[in-house]
Amino acid sequence: MRDMEPRISLVTLGVTDLRRAMDFYAAMGWQGSSPDGDVAFYQAGPMVLALWDRAKLAEDSGVTDPGSWGGVTLAHNVRSPAEVDAVIARVEPAGGRVVRPGGETFWGGYSGAFWDPDGHPWEVAHNPRWTIGDDGSITLPA
Amino acid sequence: MRDMEPRISLVTLGVTDLRRAMDFYAAMGWQGSSPDGDVAFYQAGPMVLALWDRAKLAEDSGVTDPGSWGGVTLAHNVRSPAEVDAVIARVEPAGGRVVRPGGETFWGGYSGAFWDPDGHPWEVAHNPRWTIGDDGSITLPA
Repeated sequence: MRDMEPRISLVTLGVTDLRRAMDFYAAMGWQGSSPDGDVAFYQAGPMVLALWDRAKLAEDSGVTDPGSWGGVTLAHNVRSPAEVDAVIARVEPAGGRVVRPGGETFWGGYSGAFWDPDGHPWEVAHNPRWTIGDDGSITLPA
Repeated sequence: MRDMEPRISLVTLGVTDLRRAMDFYAAMGWQGSSPDGDVAFYQAGPMVLALWDRAKLAEDSGVTDPGSWGGVTLAHNVRSPAEVDAVIARVEPAGGRVVRPGGETFWGGYSGAFWDPDGHPWEVAHNPRWTIGDDGSITLPA
């Protein structure tokens, strides 16, 4: 037995139409590639985002899939409220759905939220207490 | 409008019992803290893992929640098949559930999978073609 190091290497989003999902992330500004037309990988700083057939991912994850949200939300933090609005403005032309426009939050920041074409939610947030490094890394307050 | 930079800042897992979830991740070797007893944050290298009340997360994400898997699986990549087995061995004593023991995969690697106490699946994987840096960062092949 050993400790699980505190790292997330890969986040895989189950998709029903890989082409549609790749088109959306491309329109949002992400560069990825699919080695086999079955899965797509995006280098996201020090980690990887993958898009893969949702039925295969369910089987691989040992779960049944009723096709709904499952309690996971991703966040993309930016450096100002204006940047939140600028990213959110990108969503609907790219084929996503804005479910919450940018606005002040109960935790003292500013954020909006969108769904990608498969309904995976992302929050786009500015948290004035969290530092974003030049490399995009995010650091909790000490 | 601006590009969304290719970064995931935060992955939030919806939980029904924050204490239980924090106990599990502590037993897996993760150090986190909850500023308010409502949400917990874990510095995970250059990003953050959060645990938050699942109903609040659903509301915040603009989704309805039938309480099941939703098409997202996290992965923790390690440097050898033996490390996969060592992390998987940690899961059940910590209060999680192994849904796939370590074994060879169809993609030429070695992995196992577990659920955390809220049913969030993690794959623990060794991919011989993906480089893991000393800092835990993972890099796709060129």
